[in-house]
Amino acid sequence: MLSTQVPTETSDAGLEACCRRAEESAAELEAVGRRRRAKVLDEMAAALEQHRAEIVATADAETSLGEPRLDGELTRTCFQLRFMGALVAEGSYLEATIDHAGPTPMGARPDLRRVLKPLGPVAVFGASNFPLAFSVAGGDTASALAAGCPVVVKAHPAHPATSALCAQALVEASERAGLHEPPVGLVFGEAAGVRLVQHPAIKAIGFTGSLRGGRSLFDLARSRPDPVPFYGELGALNPLVVAPGAAERRAGEIAKGLAASFTLGVGQFCTKPGLLLAPAGPAGDALKEELAAQVSTMKAGRMLTKQVAQAFAAGSAALASHPGVKLVAEGVAPDGDEAWWGTPLVLEAEAAEVDGPVTEECFGPVLVLVRYRDLAQLSQIFKKLKPALTVSLHADLPQDRSVAELVNKAGSEMAGRVVWGGYPTGVAVSWAMHHGGPYPATTDPLHTSVGAAAIRRWLRPVCYQDFPQEMLPPELRDDPPPEHQVPRRVDGELVLP
Amino acid sequence: MLSTQVPTETSDAGLEACCRRAEESAAELEAVGRRRRAKVLDEMAAALEQHRAEIVATADAETSLGEPRLDGELTRTCFQLRFMGALVAEGSYLEATIDHAGPTPMGARPDLRRVLKPLGPVAVFGASNFPLAFSVAGGDTASALAAGCPVVVKAHPAHPATSALCAQALVEASERAGLHEPPVGLVFGEAAGVRLVQHPAIKAIGFTGSLRGGRSLFDLARSRPDPVPFYGELGALNPLVVAPGAAERRAGEIAKGLAASFTLGVGQFCTKPGLLLAPAGPAGDALKEELAAQVSTMKAGRMLTKQVAQAFAAGSAALASHPGVKLVAEGVAPDGDEAWWGTPLVLEAEAAEVDGPVTEECFGPVLVLVRYRDLAQLSQIFKKLKPALTVSLHADLPQDRSVAELVNKAGSEMAGRVVWGGYPTGVAVSWAMHHGGPYPATTDPLHTSVGAAAIRRWLRPVCYQDFPQEMLPPELRDDPPPEHQVPRRVDGELVLP
Repeated sequence: MLSTQVPTETSDAGLEACCRRAEESAAELEAVGRRRRAKVLDEMAAALEQHRAEIVATADAETSLGEPRLDGELTRTCFQLRFMGALVAEGSYLEATIDHAGPTPMGARPDLRRVLKPLGPVAVFGASNFPLAFSVAGGDTASALAAGCPVVVKAHPAHPATSALCAQALVEASERAGLHEPPVGLVFGEAAGVRLVQHPAIKAIGFTGSLRGGRSLFDLARSRPDPVPFYGELGALNPLVVAPGAAERRAGEIAKGLAASFTLGVGQFCTKPGLLLAPAGPAGDALKEELAAQVSTMKAGRMLTKQVAQAFAAGSAALASHPGVKLVAEGVAPDGDEAWWGTPLVLEAEAAEVDGPVTEECFGPVLVLVRYRDLAQLSQIFKKLKPALTVSLHADLPQDRSVAELVNKAGSEMAGRVVWGGYPTGVAVSWAMHHGGPYPATTDPLHTSVGAAAIRRWLRPVCYQDFPQEMLPPELRDDPPPEHQVPRRVDGELVLP
Repeated sequence: MLSTQVPTETSDAGLEACCRRAEESAAELEAVGRRRRAKVLDEMAAALEQHRAEIVATADAETSLGEPRLDGELTRTCFQLRFMGALVAEGSYLEATIDHAGPTPMGARPDLRRVLKPLGPVAVFGASNFPLAFSVAGGDTASALAAGCPVVVKAHPAHPATSALCAQALVEASERAGLHEPPVGLVFGEAAGVRLVQHPAIKAIGFTGSLRGGRSLFDLARSRPDPVPFYGELGALNPLVVAPGAAERRAGEIAKGLAASFTLGVGQFCTKPGLLLAPAGPAGDALKEELAAQVSTMKAGRMLTKQVAQAFAAGSAALASHPGVKLVAEGVAPDGDEAWWGTPLVLEAEAAEVDGPVTEECFGPVLVLVRYRDLAQLSQIFKKLKPALTVSLHADLPQDRSVAELVNKAGSEMAGRVVWGGYPTGVAVSWAMHHGGPYPATTDPLHTSVGAAAIRRWLRPVCYQDFPQEMLPPELRDDPPPEHQVPRRVDGELVLP
């Protein structure tokens, strides 16, 4: 049984101690090597599973998400830790590269060997909408530990006890795996978060949350005397396009899928589709009617926090009163106290009014429908949209080819993931996943916060010139022992072990 | 014969037109595909070689670098373009990744396919110290074009005609390779540079130059409404350590190599070793004497600009008057007008005085010697140093093992390249090179401005979910045609074509 003491605001001295421990841990985490770090991650997954009942119950008491969802989220959290462990053991992520000495058109080249090394201690900000999978034991933490970077987590105020429990489980697991220094620390309170971003020991920051909060921490991180990378995943509008042929053939099916997607988790996913671009004409009319029918029977849901519910009420009201916007359908309002609740809502905006709030994310179960007359108008609408995490498309080939080509091109340019015939909620943890996009989707378009490549955020290259074999990292030696054999590029050729 | 009209300050309208053309070019550069872009780069290298005599003569007239160096620099510039062309044709840089649909512990996973795409038009700031290899046709431009990103270069005021000539050669070559839009534009003047960094069409910035100038542009780029990546390579102190055994055995040889390295190009390389850490005692005394003997016969050199020479005079004077700093040796001062000249200088600082200017780069031919008594003091000195591009070490194993281990560890932590038994000047263009480091060496510790990985700065991932084969980028299809076969990761396994 873990202790479930709910902590208060972390003091300056507490933060300082936490950062100092992270520095101690950094040396150990790198020194123990990849295989041991993989073992630490496996132990962490096992510890979370061992305490599953307690963690899920605590998170259930602190949030409105419900046990089934939290149980699934814990499974995802454990999967992420093990996935990162396997990735680290495989070793491709090191980008090991060897150029032997030799002649070049510019003269003799020395022996050069490049590998990726951990950046140092990193700060992770827990997210409100994923108390497990994007918080203390979440994807940022898993990928940073895998890279060899200790983590100091700023707990989200919506689930402090869950955060403390998870941190305790991770530290216990690290002890079981033989580490002397705890590779995970935890701080509480907004002031501690601000100091953490500015602390010289912290070499990078991972953040999942709102545009406003993320931008303000981003600005802090980049205005440090020594600016450090800030990976903020700030959410997005995530447009979904239905092409005329698909609307004609599958209006009911698409309406059902879309209604489920934009209301999933009470619309509180960063990949929530917030804008539906549907064709004008009868096929689009049918889609709109089916959607209205679906949504009008859907119940309000309890949101993550009272603040989130208030922001949703204000944001959806602003949207509804925007020029050219009218109500299409509303779900079933809650009985009694509405302070924490969000009711599903579909609005329609005129194509000419796609600006201001219509182009911005409203966190919660609201979808704005816009009808496009033709390809030219669809293209014009896309020009007004800001970058997003995802763009989705329902199209039937060959009939919808021109719409599909337009959306494929625009989607690849403005988003990190383009979804065909599906819905953007649900972000698989895999080698090929990309969860990111140009600003304001994220603060760094090159990197992902989900999937294998998430580890790259916490690594920096180091090149060794003319080093004696014995002084090189083992993965860069000419004949590494079996446990240090990894895929490498040798004299320009990829070589598998 | 290229026209060598020297341009003036670029107007707002001129900058606007340049950015619009870059946007047009972005669509074309991506659409023509990798093989065609490789051909464009080859044509560019050929065009520069075709105009070699004219370009070298113009650069020689505009700078103090001399024909042999400029001729070599043009060779490097052409090599970089061809190297990037070959890299793009090979295709590993795409990081093509395929996860077929299938079951996971979190439920069914869709088909996911990830590839890297060009970021869009980028801005490149020409460097004063490399009018060819780090300017209009330099490494930033070569890697950006290879990625599929058109470039708008801000010409360095020290070599405007050379910049204009090179741009013209690149544009001619792009026409010869069949491009309709010029993928390279050129603007002049500080005001145009500032507007360029803030222009919404520009999606990333490459910069090589001073800490002050780079930080100010970095701050601009990151305070945009939509912040964009800024890759600034700002220079560094580049400490070089001589271990006791090496000093005992090879004082003369090391002194000679070091004197040549810190004065190479009148000390105007970003990898210039600026700090020598030598042992106390007789072996270190001998090294110091040999170094003094070498330097006292070396002649002053004409610097890049009058401003650079003035900054060097002021910086080296400030260093010389720092507490605990004394003169060791000075080279031969120039006859007559000294306004443009820099005279080689070796100073010695007490170990206790390693702070302030002693820890900062002074651009020009100055080296500060610091003597360390033992391992503990060497370690203390390293703790006071800021991150750098390089750390170099001369050590004889097994005698110098403890010094070597300390410097290897500290060097890997604070620098992007650790050099064994050599000198940091000379940055090979190869797969394994890393030219970077934590701030203030660069503004982005994850990336390099030299070598194969330099292309990664201009690319962002896009993931395609459940896409029909025909709509996928060719490199992501199940059975790509031979010209689109690249190394890929398929269901977690690296697969070579």
